[in-house]
Amino acid sequence: MEYPPQFSEERGLALIADIVDWQINHGSLLKQIIPHSSTSSSSQCSPVGVSVFPTLFPRAQFDHARELQPIYNELYCAMAEDEQWIFEAIRDLLPVDPLAAALWGIHKEVKQVGYAQKISVGIFRSDYMLEGPEAEFPLRSGQTLNVALKQVEFNTFSCAGGTHANKTGAMHRYLARTSAYETGSDSTTPISLEALPRNDNITSLSGCLAAAHQAYGRQRNRAAADTAVLFVVQPNNFNIADERPLEYALWDQDVPAYRVDYPDDFLQYTTLTESRELLFHPPWLGSKCVEVSVAYMRAGYEAYEYDSIGQEARLRIELSLAIKCPSLLAHICTFKKVQCALTAPGALEHFLSPEKAAMIRSTFVSMYSFDDSDIGSRARHLATDQKLARNYILKPSLEGGGHNTFGEDIPDFLASIPESQWSAYILMERIRSPSVTNVLLSPSGLDSGGVVSELGVFGTCLWRKGTDDRPYDMLQNFVGGWSFKTKHEDVDEMSVVKGYGCFDTPLLF
Amino acid sequence: MEYPPQFSEERGLALIADIVDWQINHGSLLKQIIPHSSTSSSSQCSPVGVSVFPTLFPRAQFDHARELQPIYNELYCAMAEDEQWIFEAIRDLLPVDPLAAALWGIHKEVKQVGYAQKISVGIFRSDYMLEGPEAEFPLRSGQTLNVALKQVEFNTFSCAGGTHANKTGAMHRYLARTSAYETGSDSTTPISLEALPRNDNITSLSGCLAAAHQAYGRQRNRAAADTAVLFVVQPNNFNIADERPLEYALWDQDVPAYRVDYPDDFLQYTTLTESRELLFHPPWLGSKCVEVSVAYMRAGYEAYEYDSIGQEARLRIELSLAIKCPSLLAHICTFKKVQCALTAPGALEHFLSPEKAAMIRSTFVSMYSFDDSDIGSRARHLATDQKLARNYILKPSLEGGGHNTFGEDIPDFLASIPESQWSAYILMERIRSPSVTNVLLSPSGLDSGGVVSELGVFGTCLWRKGTDDRPYDMLQNFVGGWSFKTKHEDVDEMSVVKGYGCFDTPLLF
Repeated sequence: MEYPPQFSEERGLALIADIVDWQINHGSLLKQIIPHSSTSSSSQCSPVGVSVFPTLFPRAQFDHARELQPIYNELYCAMAEDEQWIFEAIRDLLPVDPLAAALWGIHKEVKQVGYAQKISVGIFRSDYMLEGPEAEFPLRSGQTLNVALKQVEFNTFSCAGGTHANKTGAMHRYLARTSAYETGSDSTTPISLEALPRNDNITSLSGCLAAAHQAYGRQRNRAAADTAVLFVVQPNNFNIADERPLEYALWDQDVPAYRVDYPDDFLQYTTLTESRELLFHPPWLGSKCVEVSVAYMRAGYEAYEYDSIGQEARLRIELSLAIKCPSLLAHICTFKKVQCALTAPGALEHFLSPEKAAMIRSTFVSMYSFDDSDIGSRARHLATDQKLARNYILKPSLEGGGHNTFGEDIPDFLASIPESQWSAYILMERIRSPSVTNVLLSPSGLDSGGVVSELGVFGTCLWRKGTDDRPYDMLQNFVGGWSFKTKHEDVDEMSVVKGYGCFDTPLLF
Repeated sequence: MEYPPQFSEERGLALIADIVDWQINHGSLLKQIIPHSSTSSSSQCSPVGVSVFPTLFPRAQFDHARELQPIYNELYCAMAEDEQWIFEAIRDLLPVDPLAAALWGIHKEVKQVGYAQKISVGIFRSDYMLEGPEAEFPLRSGQTLNVALKQVEFNTFSCAGGTHANKTGAMHRYLARTSAYETGSDSTTPISLEALPRNDNITSLSGCLAAAHQAYGRQRNRAAADTAVLFVVQPNNFNIADERPLEYALWDQDVPAYRVDYPDDFLQYTTLTESRELLFHPPWLGSKCVEVSVAYMRAGYEAYEYDSIGQEARLRIELSLAIKCPSLLAHICTFKKVQCALTAPGALEHFLSPEKAAMIRSTFVSMYSFDDSDIGSRARHLATDQKLARNYILKPSLEGGGHNTFGEDIPDFLASIPESQWSAYILMERIRSPSVTNVLLSPSGLDSGGVVSELGVFGTCLWRKGTDDRPYDMLQNFVGGWSFKTKHEDVDEMSVVKGYGCFDTPLLF
């Protein structure tokens, strides 16, 4: 099977026109932010990067990733209610990582007066790549597939891409449906609707926020006209096409949803009452005031956001009665250091049954902290040897990626920083994915060749803090939709909005 | 009542950000066409012009315009089946108007072999302005409204703006719902959901094409895999956000819909069989071939499109079994000359009952042809006098507007062309609308001040040619949604996509 099909230039242009038109009509776009300008004339936008064809991905691994998600949700809810365990996992980080230090400091401050809200909500995403030998993928007839699903990272905070993935999935299904991939009567295209999974991120993510909103109940404060979900966002966001549809979907379910820039506008336009309701009263609502039921965080994941203003803003959120998406401790669970701590013997069994722990562990690759243990020595040995380092990635404990050092660059990088800073990083085995062929359409043009993909599975959950006997009650535990990002195999980073890689749909086989 | 409400700069900026984000996320956009470029990098787009606030419009006149639409549909279907009447209306035009001559020529050629399809489908739009004295609008309490609904034009061909209007209506309703117009507790905003009518153009227009598709029945030709609606469009269209959603809506109803550029690609990628099925087999469908059930015309309304290639393409469409949206004679009914002929005494009664004729006539303003009659003398007198001409517009018989001459410019314009060409024009009384205040947001920025609006009502219908006794059978006759366009009162033209005016929503009172 030749994949993707070879198209004439004329046909390729028609396909690209179909793609671009679909993107323009469905908000599959990035906004171009021109500073100090606020009229429509400065509001240009352009299509987000997408693959021209869906990319081959084995159905068994796709299904397995979705099966794992409720267990991952359970694991992270349990972790988020285990302060002591988290502290052990990140204690080495606190002196060297300003984001970790800021968040832990806020946690301690809130703890002194006590958290006001027992319910938390999580929108998580677990990212995987396939690991397997080159030659076996895609399958030739009679060949056995020998690939495994390996976790790249687990995101608990500000998980992006849900809407773009939803729309890209719908786009590839539209193209398949309109015969845009038809190869002719003498051969059949493998791109059928049955092979392209549906994606319901907008429904599932907004549904989870709506459930949290219901769980909050009626407003307590008399000044408030209503309760509402508050999207806490970064200023001048060019990626509004990923966030806004969740607001629109909430309104469509009769759940009021507003947004505010973090941290300045948030501090200016909210008040924490003595009984710790969080009130929102920006000038653009006139004299209307709403009580925040759910604070949905799409900001506050970078260290620079925690100057004194940022700390004050986050403290106000955490002190409040609002249900946080996610809680502060669940936020900290997204650190690579925590991911690394889970690979320690017995760590998973602390939270999960042995059967579930084994399922989760099968997705792990080797990870190392630079600590004083034997593991730490091994990490130093691997990371400082040019040859050995080739098979590893050095990751800072930050959320969001984009700060990684790859393979042979690791020894020089580590040599350039004081050894006391090394504990801010973890060393992770590189996942070698079998390469397949595709054509990617990005703002810089068309690019065809070998590509690798990353599958993310969204999980949504709602849980209540429990007692020592039973540390938490799971109120909702759902698998959401998926995200599927594909990049040229020679590019290390994966970030579509930064121009590396494209949104994509798995073509299941 | 002060309208629109006065907002602080900060609040105005927040409102505009809400508008722009909504537009980007909902495809309320214009595509920027960069010639000779076909990748995503050249596919920028920007928001279409919209009003910041909905514009005041009286509910009685809005409702009345909708009541009139089924009668207008009936009138135009009846006209479209009365070849002799149409010929009388446009006979003076044929020697001087190349578009009229081309269309009539194609009609005569088809008539020689006979039309193959008895069913036609119409997507019509009747445009109105309010006529009334300045001071009475908007109403002060206790004041009586003295405004009348006057027709600007009736469009039978390539009616645009349906999708943009649908989306703009949804946008203003979203803004009202999210308290974006809230003025505070001490006064209430008139901008309520009850005052903002819903708009269902995408559903109603696509529904009408789907009904025509069903009426066509199964494919007759064995080579065809399926039947499909074919959108016949202009190349390099920047207004895809108005057309494409109708295609998507058809697919959502399981009606296949494809598009082809007119006339070159159309000629290249279609075949007319001996039994007059129209087959579509472009390279981008691989070896797939579909039989066209409905040819939906969004091209072919300008004279330049009827060179020999264009004539051949239109002839092929008209000769075919495909149901045309609209038929060739219904197309000709959109000429201003036909609109003018309807104002002659007894003309409406030729098609309608006296009651219906009276209702329709009440929306007419004076119109004059430059012919040999007393009417023609009157037209020459009015149009060549600088002072008298002030109250008139000179319109060529072209579809689409944009070629009009206004008021005092008319005498000089007429003096600049040979008098033999004057019969290509009609003279129409200017409609003086009461001005209201609003803020318009267009690609050139914000503009506040006095504005006037144009209300369009969409009508959809399906009819079958009858016999001499009963010239046609109405199979469907529906009111669609509406369009509402607003421009600065000092601007003569109304064309949003050309940058004059904005899409808007009537705020009914």
